[in-house]
Amino acid sequence: MVSAVLLAVGAGSGAGEDGGREIAARILGAALVDDGAWEKLAWLSDRIGPRLSGSPQLERAIEWAVEEFRRDGIDSVWTEKVLVPHWVRGPESARIVSPVEHPLAVLALGMSEPTREGGVSGPVVEVASLEQLEGLGADAVRGKIVLYNKAIERNGGEHSGYGSAVGLRANGAAAAAKLGAVGMLIRSLGTASFRLPHTGAMRYEDGVPRIPAAAIAAEDAELIHRLLASGETVRVHFSLGCKSLPDAESANVVADLKGREKPEEIVVIGAHLDSWDVGTGAIDDGAGVAIVMQTMRLLKARGLVPRRTVRAVLFTNEENGVRGAEDYAGRHAAELARHVAAVEIDSGAGAPKGVRVSAGPGGEEIVRRIAAVLDVIDADAVSSPGGGADISKMRPAGVPQLALWQDSTYYFDYHHSQADTLDKVDPDDLRKNVAALALLAYGLADLEEPLPRLEPERP
Amino acid sequence: MVSAVLLAVGAGSGAGEDGGREIAARILGAALVDDGAWEKLAWLSDRIGPRLSGSPQLERAIEWAVEEFRRDGIDSVWTEKVLVPHWVRGPESARIVSPVEHPLAVLALGMSEPTREGGVSGPVVEVASLEQLEGLGADAVRGKIVLYNKAIERNGGEHSGYGSAVGLRANGAAAAAKLGAVGMLIRSLGTASFRLPHTGAMRYEDGVPRIPAAAIAAEDAELIHRLLASGETVRVHFSLGCKSLPDAESANVVADLKGREKPEEIVVIGAHLDSWDVGTGAIDDGAGVAIVMQTMRLLKARGLVPRRTVRAVLFTNEENGVRGAEDYAGRHAAELARHVAAVEIDSGAGAPKGVRVSAGPGGEEIVRRIAAVLDVIDADAVSSPGGGADISKMRPAGVPQLALWQDSTYYFDYHHSQADTLDKVDPDDLRKNVAALALLAYGLADLEEPLPRLEPERP
Repeated sequence: MVSAVLLAVGAGSGAGEDGGREIAARILGAALVDDGAWEKLAWLSDRIGPRLSGSPQLERAIEWAVEEFRRDGIDSVWTEKVLVPHWVRGPESARIVSPVEHPLAVLALGMSEPTREGGVSGPVVEVASLEQLEGLGADAVRGKIVLYNKAIERNGGEHSGYGSAVGLRANGAAAAAKLGAVGMLIRSLGTASFRLPHTGAMRYEDGVPRIPAAAIAAEDAELIHRLLASGETVRVHFSLGCKSLPDAESANVVADLKGREKPEEIVVIGAHLDSWDVGTGAIDDGAGVAIVMQTMRLLKARGLVPRRTVRAVLFTNEENGVRGAEDYAGRHAAELARHVAAVEIDSGAGAPKGVRVSAGPGGEEIVRRIAAVLDVIDADAVSSPGGGADISKMRPAGVPQLALWQDSTYYFDYHHSQADTLDKVDPDDLRKNVAALALLAYGLADLEEPLPRLEPERP
Repeated sequence: MVSAVLLAVGAGSGAGEDGGREIAARILGAALVDDGAWEKLAWLSDRIGPRLSGSPQLERAIEWAVEEFRRDGIDSVWTEKVLVPHWVRGPESARIVSPVEHPLAVLALGMSEPTREGGVSGPVVEVASLEQLEGLGADAVRGKIVLYNKAIERNGGEHSGYGSAVGLRANGAAAAAKLGAVGMLIRSLGTASFRLPHTGAMRYEDGVPRIPAAAIAAEDAELIHRLLASGETVRVHFSLGCKSLPDAESANVVADLKGREKPEEIVVIGAHLDSWDVGTGAIDDGAGVAIVMQTMRLLKARGLVPRRTVRAVLFTNEENGVRGAEDYAGRHAAELARHVAAVEIDSGAGAPKGVRVSAGPGGEEIVRRIAAVLDVIDADAVSSPGGGADISKMRPAGVPQLALWQDSTYYFDYHHSQADTLDKVDPDDLRKNVAALALLAYGLADLEEPLPRLEPERP
């Protein structure tokens, strides 16, 4: 099977049939026996740890990444300064105070205001959607604590996946505050029930009161639901000591492997170096960082130099601001026309399934030919759309948007929680991801003609 | 299939073939459409909550159980006072202090002494067994914190199940203290990894220093392991504010359904009313309590009166002392010769698989005939040994020891943790457990000749 499918890479690359086969074999072979990504990830998650924007750990991670790229012999490595939000968690607690006394497993949402001294109390109004909240109206919500209680499921897709509920987390506090709520709680956006709260970003709206917002464990949301369903008034108290400090200096880390023919044309492979503060950011997005870094090392060490430049970008502040991505797109605005593709790796460390892509007409078919060789590791599926939060900032300039498509069945079991730790990563899957990204990056950068671009958006 | 297997109950009971079938049909039919056990369990876990010995919640649970038995029309309900240990959890925290700073998810083990003011610190010595610790000797252990790091697996059996590691939790502090350790930590005895510590009982030995003992999350034990494996000295600090207060008054709750021919002969069906303090004791052992209580209600409501008395015993203090069981066996010592069988229900709320039994020669075969009718709900398996912590106190008197055999695949995911909550229970499985226990209790109490007894043990 290997020899049959390896033929395919020749069709996608400009290296000719034999050259394509040979390069694919070198990449796959090298990636599948190499634990370099694991070693990088172990250092980043175990030794540096959680890396929220503004933290000393994020600064250490940036320094480490620069040094590591250099140790790996990458041609050109630099940082690009970015001012990032500096939100810090404080002491936090929550409990049902009536009709029973029951502690709630709680985490403030990122960017939440603290509660006032002594915390906030009130009866709970439970809804499963913003529409349901609107339907209740201000008289039912004023002075209360709104609980968004929507369960999500593993591989739940549009109906009950993460994407179906993340809007509640982001916008739920503002929506509740408009109707006079004094606090906002949300059932954690997680796909397992181990009394584990999952944090994540939220935002306020100008002119709307900034009420405190926190996530509680699935079990606790279900208990409140059962008590409400039995006709009780449920009163909750919570206290958040988080705060926002002045913006902090941070940086994107950029590293180039110069192309052999058109070094001014760039394929970006990107992941984010920041993480939430409660786990060690192993799957979100330490794994992506390690896969990107090891891809660079592998291409360099094997002397695999495609036509165009492969650029690693380790973005800062993806989690609570996306300032790194905004800075990159702004700073490099004039060069985005020469950014021929951007690939985001931010779905954990599950086995690669293939590639997701958004490109101009015919682009998906070209990606399909590049990815065909990944059949040997069951990673040759191609689907659309592609992209990710960081590279989306290059979308208006028409840069084709791709993502490494990974098995994310268990990703949301741990995502944004204190259980996002190294043990959740399978070293074998990590190697396969390096193989997949290295093949994809090389293939994209070595095309005779670059991928068809997306239609630019008006500014 | 139903009619075929229902024939079997006649063989085990004294009701004759037709009577046996009829009774089995009434029990199964009644149990499988009834949510009474769920309602009881919901009240016990959601409304009363965690019930550690000495807590006001355990007192409320005892009062509630008495009232509930009476509401259910049980003939004779009473409490038997028991003095129980009164250990209470306090503030607790733990962290790796070098070579990295990392918080550990921690729970004091039940009955642990507190740390001295300011906590305890030391380098970690990691072992997977008591034998390995002995092998290291005092020079390697003195002044250090011993970490017992043994992973257990779902359905791990003898090799890697709960039973293979619970001795470390119970005796590990004393073993470590004998070699001069200053503290004891143990990887939580749980079968899932969600940064969730699992508590449980430990004991000290006379004449051996009483060092503080706590469980940490699996992830944290693995991190310490990785750091040690890389050659680092790992220093940990932990602080436990738990304490032991004077013994508290508690009680077993006893309820009788008098037998129609030999009311002085007794089949005990038992579960424990106390629980650990961190979840709501839904699966350990609220489910057992609800199954026992609903079995009594069902037999009473349907007018099903076997030859002998069926006695529900809701034991106190199973978790950290087994004082309820000791009291029962002592108080009723003179009557244990007329205790013809004891069944323990303390394996959660998973679907019933059958019955586990330890009885005299031929006893297992008789149980097999009684259980045969449970084929309709796939719960007719019979195996040995049987028994449980509470009824084991009747074992020396020769009382046959049985247990409801339940699917416990996921039991140790949640056991003794804050995730032991009502949502872990499937209402349908709970109904099936009531069906299984009601059939078993009726069958045992209605035998013409009681089960062959076990050989009495010398006192």
